[in-house]
Amino acid sequence: MARAHWGCCPWLVLLCACAWGHPKPADLGGQDVRNCSTNPPYLPVTVVNTTVSLTALRQQMQTQNLSAYIIPDTDAHMNEYIGQHDERRAWITGFTGSAGTAVVTMKKAAVWTDSRYWTQAERQMDCNWELHKEVGTTPIVTWLLTEIPAGGCVGFDPFLLSIDTWESYNLALQGSNRQLVSITTNLVDLVWGSERPPVPNQPIYALQEAFTGSTWQEKVSGVRSQMQKHQKAPTAVLLSALEETAWLFNLRASDIPYNPFFYSYTLLTVSSIRLFANKSRFSSETLSYLNSSCTGPMCVQIEDYSQVRDSIQAYALGDVRIWIGTSYTMYGIYEVIPKEKLVTDTYSPVMMTKAVKNSKEQALLKASHVRDAVAVIRYLVWLEKNVPKGTVDEFSGAELVDKFRGEEQFSSGPSFETISASGLNAALAHYSPTKELNRKLSSDEMYLLDSGGQYWDGTTDITRTVHWGTPSAFQKEAYTRVLIGNIDLSRLIFPAATSGRMVEAFARRALWDAGLNYGHGTGHGIGNFLCVHEWPVGFQSNNIAMAKGMFTSIEPGYYKDGEFGIRLEDVALVVEAKTKYPGSYLTFEVVSFVPYDRNLIDVSLLSPEHLQYLNRYYQTIREKVGPELQRRQLLEEFKWLQQHTEPLAARAPDTASWASVLVVSTLAILGWSL
Amino acid sequence: MARAHWGCCPWLVLLCACAWGHPKPADLGGQDVRNCSTNPPYLPVTVVNTTVSLTALRQQMQTQNLSAYIIPDTDAHMNEYIGQHDERRAWITGFTGSAGTAVVTMKKAAVWTDSRYWTQAERQMDCNWELHKEVGTTPIVTWLLTEIPAGGCVGFDPFLLSIDTWESYNLALQGSNRQLVSITTNLVDLVWGSERPPVPNQPIYALQEAFTGSTWQEKVSGVRSQMQKHQKAPTAVLLSALEETAWLFNLRASDIPYNPFFYSYTLLTVSSIRLFANKSRFSSETLSYLNSSCTGPMCVQIEDYSQVRDSIQAYALGDVRIWIGTSYTMYGIYEVIPKEKLVTDTYSPVMMTKAVKNSKEQALLKASHVRDAVAVIRYLVWLEKNVPKGTVDEFSGAELVDKFRGEEQFSSGPSFETISASGLNAALAHYSPTKELNRKLSSDEMYLLDSGGQYWDGTTDITRTVHWGTPSAFQKEAYTRVLIGNIDLSRLIFPAATSGRMVEAFARRALWDAGLNYGHGTGHGIGNFLCVHEWPVGFQSNNIAMAKGMFTSIEPGYYKDGEFGIRLEDVALVVEAKTKYPGSYLTFEVVSFVPYDRNLIDVSLLSPEHLQYLNRYYQTIREKVGPELQRRQLLEEFKWLQQHTEPLAARAPDTASWASVLVVSTLAILGWSL
Repeated sequence: MARAHWGCCPWLVLLCACAWGHPKPADLGGQDVRNCSTNPPYLPVTVVNTTVSLTALRQQMQTQNLSAYIIPDTDAHMNEYIGQHDERRAWITGFTGSAGTAVVTMKKAAVWTDSRYWTQAERQMDCNWELHKEVGTTPIVTWLLTEIPAGGCVGFDPFLLSIDTWESYNLALQGSNRQLVSITTNLVDLVWGSERPPVPNQPIYALQEAFTGSTWQEKVSGVRSQMQKHQKAPTAVLLSALEETAWLFNLRASDIPYNPFFYSYTLLTVSSIRLFANKSRFSSETLSYLNSSCTGPMCVQIEDYSQVRDSIQAYALGDVRIWIGTSYTMYGIYEVIPKEKLVTDTYSPVMMTKAVKNSKEQALLKASHVRDAVAVIRYLVWLEKNVPKGTVDEFSGAELVDKFRGEEQFSSGPSFETISASGLNAALAHYSPTKELNRKLSSDEMYLLDSGGQYWDGTTDITRTVHWGTPSAFQKEAYTRVLIGNIDLSRLIFPAATSGRMVEAFARRALWDAGLNYGHGTGHGIGNFLCVHEWPVGFQSNNIAMAKGMFTSIEPGYYKDGEFGIRLEDVALVVEAKTKYPGSYLTFEVVSFVPYDRNLIDVSLLSPEHLQYLNRYYQTIREKVGPELQRRQLLEEFKWLQQHTEPLAARAPDTASWASVLVVSTLAILGWSL
Repeated sequence: MARAHWGCCPWLVLLCACAWGHPKPADLGGQDVRNCSTNPPYLPVTVVNTTVSLTALRQQMQTQNLSAYIIPDTDAHMNEYIGQHDERRAWITGFTGSAGTAVVTMKKAAVWTDSRYWTQAERQMDCNWELHKEVGTTPIVTWLLTEIPAGGCVGFDPFLLSIDTWESYNLALQGSNRQLVSITTNLVDLVWGSERPPVPNQPIYALQEAFTGSTWQEKVSGVRSQMQKHQKAPTAVLLSALEETAWLFNLRASDIPYNPFFYSYTLLTVSSIRLFANKSRFSSETLSYLNSSCTGPMCVQIEDYSQVRDSIQAYALGDVRIWIGTSYTMYGIYEVIPKEKLVTDTYSPVMMTKAVKNSKEQALLKASHVRDAVAVIRYLVWLEKNVPKGTVDEFSGAELVDKFRGEEQFSSGPSFETISASGLNAALAHYSPTKELNRKLSSDEMYLLDSGGQYWDGTTDITRTVHWGTPSAFQKEAYTRVLIGNIDLSRLIFPAATSGRMVEAFARRALWDAGLNYGHGTGHGIGNFLCVHEWPVGFQSNNIAMAKGMFTSIEPGYYKDGEFGIRLEDVALVVEAKTKYPGSYLTFEVVSFVPYDRNLIDVSLLSPEHLQYLNRYYQTIREKVGPELQRRQLLEEFKWLQQHTEPLAARAPDTASWASVLVVSTLAILGWSL
C-alpha cells in the first residue's frame, strides 16, 4: 500500500479513501487553521495568498466568456503520481493534498475534497476559497447551478477530465441551460506562466534485453493479432496511459515521481506505429532501436507529443475504428473521435496483455523480490539493534530503508513514498513521515513499514509490522488474525478466471470472526519496473478476473485508532493449483521473502494447516534469501534470517478440538482415567 | 432452487442459465427432432403447425406497417412464472420452453434460446421457424439488420420489454435506419383471439391479520415517509411488480403459478392511493378493508387495470416526480413519463422495505418452516421404507411431497415446481419429472429433492440429497464438501452491509480445494407467502447488501454429469452476531429444520468447528420439530428424527493435524515410544 492506494492511476484513489473505515486528516502538527469569519480573517503562516493569480485566471475566463472554470487534480494520463508542472490545482489554491477539485467563478472560488484533507486545506488556503467537504461531481454541479447564471458556460481542460468524469458533469448539467465548454489551452497554465515548473526532458531510454519479457516487435505483433481477432476489427489501438507506451516499447524515463514513465501516446495501427513524444529526448541508439527512420509496419514514427489530438483527429477522418481503454483515456482525445469509429473496452489490449507476465517476466519480478528482501532484512536487523537506543525516528528509518534498497543491484529508487509509521501513526490511512514531523521508534510500540523499490527487473511492495518489546495480548491477537487472513487468501485454491472480489473476504474472515476488520482493499497488481499499483489486477470489483501469470499484492491489516496499525503485505504470483480432481484451478505463490514477526504471532490461534503453510513459506525464504545473504557476506543478517524462520511449533489451542478429543481417546485406550 | 432460478422475476434467469457450468437440454425422451433439410421436411408428432397463425400475424404487421415484430417470453410484470394467457411466444412458435424470444418478419420467423432448450425447440417448432442458438438482444439485432430493409419498422409490445431490454434494442439499432415502434395492442393477442386462455378472475382477498407483519396503512405510511426523506422528493411511487402491490396491501390471489399474486399496479402518491386492478374481483369486505369508498390519503381508489398507462400519463402532466424501480418496470409505463419527472432506483422503496422482515414476519416465516420440515420428514421416512420396494418414481415422489405439504396447516400449494431427481437426472440444471418421463428411485442411486411450499405465514424452499444404499467414496466426499460449504457460509460472521457476492465463495472453498465446484448461484431471498425467489436479497452481484432481518437460501451443490447431483439448501435469517470485540456484525440463523443424510457424511473431513456447528443445528431441529411431530402423533417420524439428529462424533482426520501432534505428545509424556 502507498499514499495514493490501489491504482497506478488516481481514478481509484477516491474509492479507496471511501473504503477506509475512519479516514483521518494527516497530523499536521497542530490545528493552526484559517478563520475567515473574523475581521480581519486569521490566516496561519502556511496559507498561500492566491488573490493575484485568481484575478489573472478570471481575466482569462472572461476572454473565453466563461462563468466558471473547473480545475481537477489530474494530469493528462490519469497518473497516480503527477509531476509538479501538472499540480495546477495545488498552485491555484495553495492546497497541496493529492485529491481535490477546484472550481472558480467570477465571484467565488471553491475546493471539494475528502476528509483526509480538510485540516490541510484549512491550513493552506486563504479566504478566497470556500472549502466543500464533499466529493464527486454531483455537489460541484449543485453548487454551480446556484452560482452561475442561466446560459452560463463552464470551461474545462478536456485533457484533465476522464471520459467518465466528463459524462457525469455533462449528465448533471443536462437541461440546466448551462453548458460545458472544452478549452484545450489550460487557463491555469496561462496564468502560471514562467513560474510553472518545466515539463521533464530527461532522456528516454530502452531497457536492456535482459530486463524485458519480449521485444517491442513481439509485443506489437501480439497487439495487432488481437486487433485482427476482435469482432469489431479495429484498425488502430490508441494508448493513453504512460505505462502502456513504456511497456510496449520497453522504454523508460523519469518524468513522474516513482513511476519510470515519460509523457507519450501511441497510435498503433495495422500498418504503422506512431509514438507521440518529444523526439529530442531519444538518443540515436534508441531511435535506431525503434526503427524510427523507416516507414513500414515495424517502424516507429515519432511525432511530437503536442500533436496527438490533431493527429488522432486527422486519422479518424478515414475509414477507421480506434480501440481505446475507456477508464484512462481523457475526454480531450475521446471528443475528436466520432462515436461510430470508436471501439471501447474498459482496458486496452496492452493493459490486458501486460497484466499477465510471461515466464521471463515472472523470473525477473521474482529475482527483484529476492534482492528487495535483502534490503528489508538489513533494515529490520538494523532496527532491532538501534531502536532500543532511542535514536531512530520514522523519517530517518524511511531514509535508511530507501538507502538499503538503493544499494541493491539494478535499483532505480523507491516505488512509492515509504510509509514508516510508529505507534498510533500506523493507524492513519495516508501517513508518511517528514523531516519535520515524525515519531520516534520505540520498543514499546508497534512499527509499520510499507515500502517498495523500482529495479530494472521488477517493482516491489512489501509491508511488515514489528514490535521489539512486549506486545499486548490484543496486539498479538490482531496481528495473528491479520496473518491468518494473509495465509488463508494466499493458500486459497480457486477456479481459473475467478474475480478477486469474490475471494478477498478470505483475507478478512479471521478478523471478522472477532469483530475486527480493515477499511481498505486487499491487493493490487504490480509491474516489471512499471507501476507499483498496476491495474487492472487486484481484488476490487473493477479488477479483471484472476489468471495464471498475474502478480498481486495480498495485504490485510488492522488499525486501532489512536493506538497502532498492522498490515502484512506480500506480492504473490497467480499459479496453477494441483487439485485432487482434475480441473482448471489457481492459487498464489508468494514472492515476497521477509519473515513475519514471531514476537507478534499467537501460535495458539493458528490451525495445523496455517502452521504447515507458514513453515513451508519460511523454508522457501531460507532457500531464496539465505544464499544471497551469504554471497554478500551479510552474516549477521543471515543469522537473523535463520532465527526468524525457525519452524513454528504447534501449541495447544484453547478451545475444545480434535486435540483434546484425541488425547482423551488416547488416554482412554491406554486405560487412564482423567 | 427451482426451474427458473434465482429471481422472482425472469430478468435473471438468463444469468443463471449462463452461470450453470454445463447446461443440458432437458431429457425429452429421445432425439426425435424435426429435419427441415429433407423434402418434405421430417416433423415429429410433437411439432405444432404455425402456418395459419403466422399468416394472420403478418397481416396484422402489415396493417401496422411493420417489417418485423418481436415476441418476448415475458409478461407485463416480469414475473418468474407467467400465466397461460401470457404465453404468447409459446403459442405462436409451438416452443414451450420458459426462455426464448421470437421475431417474425414478412418472410422469416426465428427463435433465440439457450442450450437448455435447443432439443425441445427442435421437437416443437415446425419449419416455419429458424432456431438461433444464441441469447441476448445483439444477435437478434444483427439478424434483423440483414432481414429487414432500411427504413423498416420493428414493432414490439411496450409492456413486454423491460426498460433495460428496450434500451439495448434501441442502442443496437441506433443509426441503422431501422426504427423501434411501440404498439400497445399486442398483435399476437389479436391473432390468438378467442383461443387465448382467459385472464384469471378469482377473488382477490386480504390476508388475515395474524399472517401480516404490518397493516397496509402502516406500510403506506412507511413508504410515504421514505418519499419525504428522499432528496429528490418524489410525489409518487409506482409499483409495477405484482409482489409489491400484494405486499403493500396484504392482498393475495392466484393469477400466476406458484406465486399468490394478482395483476395490478399501484400509484401511491403523497395524498392518494390508486390501485389498478379488476374491481369486480374484490368482495365488499375487501373493499371496505381497503377504505375504497372514501378519497383521502388513506383511502384506496380502485381503478381498472387496463387504465394504468393512461392514468400515469395523465398524472405525469402535473408538477410531479414518480419514483420507480427500474429493473422490473416495463417500457410501456416508462415511456409515458417524461424523463425529468422520473426518480429512478434499481428497486422501489417497497422492494427494499419488503426485503427486511420485521420480528412478526420473521416469526411467521420460521413457523412455516417448522411445519414444512414435518412434511419433508414425513416424505423422507416414507421414502426410506418404500424406495427399496422399487415402487417409487420421481414423479410419484414429487406428488407425494406436494401432498404432504398440502396437509400442513395454512398450506397454499407448492412454491415452485418440485425438483425430484434420481441418479444422473439430478445433474441436470432444470430437471423436473413428468408423469410420462421420470426415473425410478433406487437404493443404488442418490436422490435430490428441491421443493417448497406456500403457506399463509411464509414461503419455504429446501433441498436435501439422500442415498439409501452404499454411496461411493467420491459421492460421500462430494456430499461432505457441499455440506462444509453450507456450514462455512451459514456460520460466517461478517460486517453489516456486506454484499452477498463478497462472501458466497465460503460456500465453495471446500469444493474448490479438491478441484470441484458448482455452476449456479449460492442463494436467493424468500418471502412471507410471496415469491420463493424474492429479490433483491441474495449472493449475486446485483443483490443488495445483507442486513439484519433478511432471509436468504444457502445452497451449494455439486453435479457430476451423467452420474449424480448434490445440493443442500437451507433458508437462513440474517441475524446480529456477537463478536469478541464490539462491532456491527451479522451471521445466519438457519430456519430450515431437516437433518442431512448421515449416510453421505464423511466425518473425517469435518473440523471440530464443523461438528460443533452441526450438532448444535441438530439440537435446534430436535427442539423445533420434535414437539411438533409428537403433538401430531407422528411417532415413527419422531423416532426417525431422533436417530438422524444424534450428535456426530469426531473421527480422526487423515491428514497430520493437532490430533496426531498431541497424541504423539501425550504418548511421549507417558514414556511410550512409537
